[in-house]
Amino acid sequence: MASIAHELAKKQKEISVSEFFEKNKHILGFDSLTRALITAVKESVDNSLDACEDAGILPDVLVRIDKESNNEYRVTVEDNGPGIVKKQVPNVFGRLLYGSRFHTRAQRRGQQGIGVSAVVMYGQITTGKPAKIKSKISDEDVAYECELVMDTKKNRAQAVRDDFVIWEKEHGTRFEVNLKGKYVQGKQSTFEYLKGVAIVNPHARITFTPPDGKAMVFERSTEEMPPPTREVKPHPEGVELGELLNMAKYTEAKKMTSFLNTEFSRISLRVAREILDKAEISYDQRPSRLNLDQAGGIIDAVKEVKIMSPETDCLSPIGEGLIRKSLKNVLGEARASFYAPPITREPKVFGGNPFVVEVGIVYGGQLSREDPVQIFRFANRVPLMYQQGACATTQGIENVDWRRYGLEQRGGKGIPYGPAIILVHVASTKIPFTSESKEAIANVPEIREEIELALKACARKLKTHLNKAEKKSKTRVKFEIVQEIIPMIAQKSAKIVGKPVPDIAGTITKIMNVVWVEDEVVHDKKRHHVSVKLYNYTPKTQKMHIHMILPYDKVDEKSLSLEPAEVRDGSKVTWNIKKIAPTDIFELAFDLKGVDKDEYDDNEVFVSGIDPASIIGADVLPGDWDLEHITITENGGAAGEASDNGEIDYDEGAEVIGDEE
Amino acid sequence: MASIAHELAKKQKEISVSEFFEKNKHILGFDSLTRALITAVKESVDNSLDACEDAGILPDVLVRIDKESNNEYRVTVEDNGPGIVKKQVPNVFGRLLYGSRFHTRAQRRGQQGIGVSAVVMYGQITTGKPAKIKSKISDEDVAYECELVMDTKKNRAQAVRDDFVIWEKEHGTRFEVNLKGKYVQGKQSTFEYLKGVAIVNPHARITFTPPDGKAMVFERSTEEMPPPTREVKPHPEGVELGELLNMAKYTEAKKMTSFLNTEFSRISLRVAREILDKAEISYDQRPSRLNLDQAGGIIDAVKEVKIMSPETDCLSPIGEGLIRKSLKNVLGEARASFYAPPITREPKVFGGNPFVVEVGIVYGGQLSREDPVQIFRFANRVPLMYQQGACATTQGIENVDWRRYGLEQRGGKGIPYGPAIILVHVASTKIPFTSESKEAIANVPEIREEIELALKACARKLKTHLNKAEKKSKTRVKFEIVQEIIPMIAQKSAKIVGKPVPDIAGTITKIMNVVWVEDEVVHDKKRHHVSVKLYNYTPKTQKMHIHMILPYDKVDEKSLSLEPAEVRDGSKVTWNIKKIAPTDIFELAFDLKGVDKDEYDDNEVFVSGIDPASIIGADVLPGDWDLEHITITENGGAAGEASDNGEIDYDEGAEVIGDEE
Repeated sequence: MASIAHELAKKQKEISVSEFFEKNKHILGFDSLTRALITAVKESVDNSLDACEDAGILPDVLVRIDKESNNEYRVTVEDNGPGIVKKQVPNVFGRLLYGSRFHTRAQRRGQQGIGVSAVVMYGQITTGKPAKIKSKISDEDVAYECELVMDTKKNRAQAVRDDFVIWEKEHGTRFEVNLKGKYVQGKQSTFEYLKGVAIVNPHARITFTPPDGKAMVFERSTEEMPPPTREVKPHPEGVELGELLNMAKYTEAKKMTSFLNTEFSRISLRVAREILDKAEISYDQRPSRLNLDQAGGIIDAVKEVKIMSPETDCLSPIGEGLIRKSLKNVLGEARASFYAPPITREPKVFGGNPFVVEVGIVYGGQLSREDPVQIFRFANRVPLMYQQGACATTQGIENVDWRRYGLEQRGGKGIPYGPAIILVHVASTKIPFTSESKEAIANVPEIREEIELALKACARKLKTHLNKAEKKSKTRVKFEIVQEIIPMIAQKSAKIVGKPVPDIAGTITKIMNVVWVEDEVVHDKKRHHVSVKLYNYTPKTQKMHIHMILPYDKVDEKSLSLEPAEVRDGSKVTWNIKKIAPTDIFELAFDLKGVDKDEYDDNEVFVSGIDPASIIGADVLPGDWDLEHITITENGGAAGEASDNGEIDYDEGAEVIGDEE
Repeated sequence: MASIAHELAKKQKEISVSEFFEKNKHILGFDSLTRALITAVKESVDNSLDACEDAGILPDVLVRIDKESNNEYRVTVEDNGPGIVKKQVPNVFGRLLYGSRFHTRAQRRGQQGIGVSAVVMYGQITTGKPAKIKSKISDEDVAYECELVMDTKKNRAQAVRDDFVIWEKEHGTRFEVNLKGKYVQGKQSTFEYLKGVAIVNPHARITFTPPDGKAMVFERSTEEMPPPTREVKPHPEGVELGELLNMAKYTEAKKMTSFLNTEFSRISLRVAREILDKAEISYDQRPSRLNLDQAGGIIDAVKEVKIMSPETDCLSPIGEGLIRKSLKNVLGEARASFYAPPITREPKVFGGNPFVVEVGIVYGGQLSREDPVQIFRFANRVPLMYQQGACATTQGIENVDWRRYGLEQRGGKGIPYGPAIILVHVASTKIPFTSESKEAIANVPEIREEIELALKACARKLKTHLNKAEKKSKTRVKFEIVQEIIPMIAQKSAKIVGKPVPDIAGTITKIMNVVWVEDEVVHDKKRHHVSVKLYNYTPKTQKMHIHMILPYDKVDEKSLSLEPAEVRDGSKVTWNIKKIAPTDIFELAFDLKGVDKDEYDDNEVFVSGIDPASIIGADVLPGDWDLEHITITENGGAAGEASDNGEIDYDEGAEVIGDEE
């Protein structure tokens, strides 16, 4: 027995990080030939985009895949970034766990110091060939070019051949690698990956030349760089006890107050003192002497003291407008019938790292009704192609009861079915991936909850749209039947009794007994014309309030067919419609100026001051305009504060436009 | 621009492996409080079981979880393994990428050199407290005890306090760690994890004391150790070009023949020469001089030369019998109605690593009919609790069209619904996990294909069972109706016409027109009695062949009610039933001896030599007994080689028992 313990002890050995990943290459995304090729493209393109953005350059990335033999391909990725200095080339491309972005908290695609070096290693393992790098920085006349070979036992790379060469390019980097792979088309393909990159990087131009040699270009849809993102200190919420002790040990600050103030974001000196008071620690104590109990006291105090939310300028969400625009740009062929207004949530924190969640939903058109919804996942503007089932975004989608929002879903759990695409983007100074292959976001509760909230908010907008569409289509059918049958009955009866055919307009109105709301947005060259028509198909004169959510500063006031009674927050607009006689039509119309077609192409119309049962084509305004909190009830209507008698409780602000008639 | 390249260069830094994982602790399985606690238990128990098995000791593992404060828990895991020598304690428990099993090819739970050290690191990060280890090896009188603290910047641990202490235990290791976590019950819990461990480690006893202090024991269900597994050399199939070059560079062999012969498994000197001939390489060439083209030649030659399948004694599958026994043992409360005979496939190879896939299916009883099937995933006898969606086992299940095997599944893709548990176990000298948390098997095509084949083979057995059950239940309904109505009609008619009630037995037979097969296995204290009854409910005398698959060496020959006409391969048994008169019953019966109840509790009965349309309760024998290849047709019948006239084409071997009547 003892000899076994000693024998086992003898076998204990250190493992070099590159040996580890050489043997576990599937962890890095090289588990199948198809995926290996996509991973190689992904890691190289990530690096190129990060480099360009670090240097404030609009990215122009060339991706080329050549077939060398049966399952050997050559991947070439070239960018117009700032270039890499000669000395760093072997480190950037041939050394695992080495990089510039690991020790900073900033929203970057690469954060691990593994990516592209792993591609070099995989290429070498599978083909035995070195990778080739050419790089030029703009204050030098020539480019540096080399062929790199990695020693995986030592985790170091060596240039087996290098030289300075002429390169017409002003600056940039070109990376070429041979690897065993498989080029495919379809859902998980290089093409789809690059399409995803284009959706979330509207400022990048990507030129892709597949093995057949026919280049295609994903043109940038904006010339504006995303706002530059700052590095930040950790936010105190979510910092772990052991991390705090470690930080206190290594800080250069001499006092606890300055330690908290300088090492964390959002801790002013005043807040630092408040925290230390609560934790009963002296302001002047040396941080290095912080003990376990005291650290626990600080962690507890942080929960009680009011600390500002994390800075947002360290994050670069895509933004609600651009998500919609990009989706339309790239998904043109699916001709979806509805693009739900995307949701960008406020930043939140997990483990000291700020993050923000964005969601968009596309519905209808030529999307399949029989299949599960398509999920487009993104993290820091990088498309996630694999391991969908392990991703917090997927788990968020599975946790939402989509039956309430108009999609099919067995048991109210799991991925819903229906003609929809759900886009989820998580941006953070630190994306908690489940593995080094960076394909799935770990199920961190804070993140998953935000994803669920964003999904629900966006899904409500889908539901409102579907409700409106469904109610209209049902009533339209009734309309058509009534308009067809009643005149026929009238004619037949008249013929039988030998009398003239009676006027039946009033009869039809009586049978229908609804106010029909029809709204549209018409885009033409110069203007966006909005029209809301109210058809009074009831036997009584009607009055009501019409409410819309729109960018009121973009409304051409001259074009207004009726002055609004009230405009709140620059976007919540109310009109008082005083009188519509039976069978009359009232039209509310105006033009919008300077609005992008993709930004405003669907009206949000609500009504109040009228029996909700008689309204078709618009939802009832919930109390207090609190649209974020509309609960969609089982039968599909929006449960506002409509009281039993069918009248809405109209809140104070809206009473301005009370019953003047 | 240039300054940016230089600035970026300055930020480039090496990242220590423990810093990397400190910041990416979710990769190690610490992404939520609940999972953190399970991961800690899992890594410690894995280590304990591996250590016991290395030393040939039946494992006796104690797991204890104590609640220390709101979300701080203390995890204690103690084993009766061989112990760890003092010098190695800081390495085993406090150093990432360090271990005894990384450089060997053998089926072990731990292969990465990360697991338990990651637990120590996580505990320290979240609580600031050191881990405590006590270990005793059997040739020493005292145990070594220490408290370990890790320096994550250096990836080294230090004993902050250590001592030799008295421990009544002969040998073993006790590990205690405080960590931030959450103890829960339910599907993903420590209890369920340990239950899973018990299913696939029937030789281990596990005692679990949850925070409420009420200890429970998973008793071992066998006293036999699994056969010890050998370390193996890589199998030449699937070795990559670059790996081959690397191996040739570092080998101690002086000639290519001995290099291939000593560094790979299943390459004899003869095979080595054959490979070298094909690749046009001299037998005596020094391996270190192997060039790229030559290496490619060897890779190609390996595909052409016939090389034996990998050794199987490096693998320790659970085995068909024990899977069934364990499932029954642990799943008693679900009272499933059917345990499909498990499938253990032949070993295959991926990337030079042998692996074997095992599948079991449990059906019916109190399992829910409304939910997705439950999936029990295992790798090297370790239950996988998280990241189900990312796992090759799940993808294998999703790729099977379960509608053909009697489960509901929308569109024939995705996880099926129904009252079933599907167990998949993959054993390999190298499990390709998707991440260091070892919760999902990467989607390696070779493995996924084996999983699908195993699932289909097991699913066919489920389908056969369901077919039989469904046909019987349908015919039984018909029977009951006929037996109730015909006599009533007879009575009524007799009464109306004033005549005596006629004998209607023949009439019922005419209407039913089937041969009813009813089989059963009765277990009592001493014997297993098998009975197959044939009811001739047709108006004609019938003859037929009955075929069964059973361990014929276990049949008590004295008990046979009819001598078989043929026994093939020791298990394919055929009887010739020469004559059953209308309304007669024929019984075929015998006893089995020395068979475990769990191993044989369902008969596989087939018929031939009779119109298949008139048989209820047994499937038609496919041509050539080729049961692995039965295609289940849409209407649920087995499509053998039944010809159009309803007669089966009986193959040569079976003609021995031809028409003697």
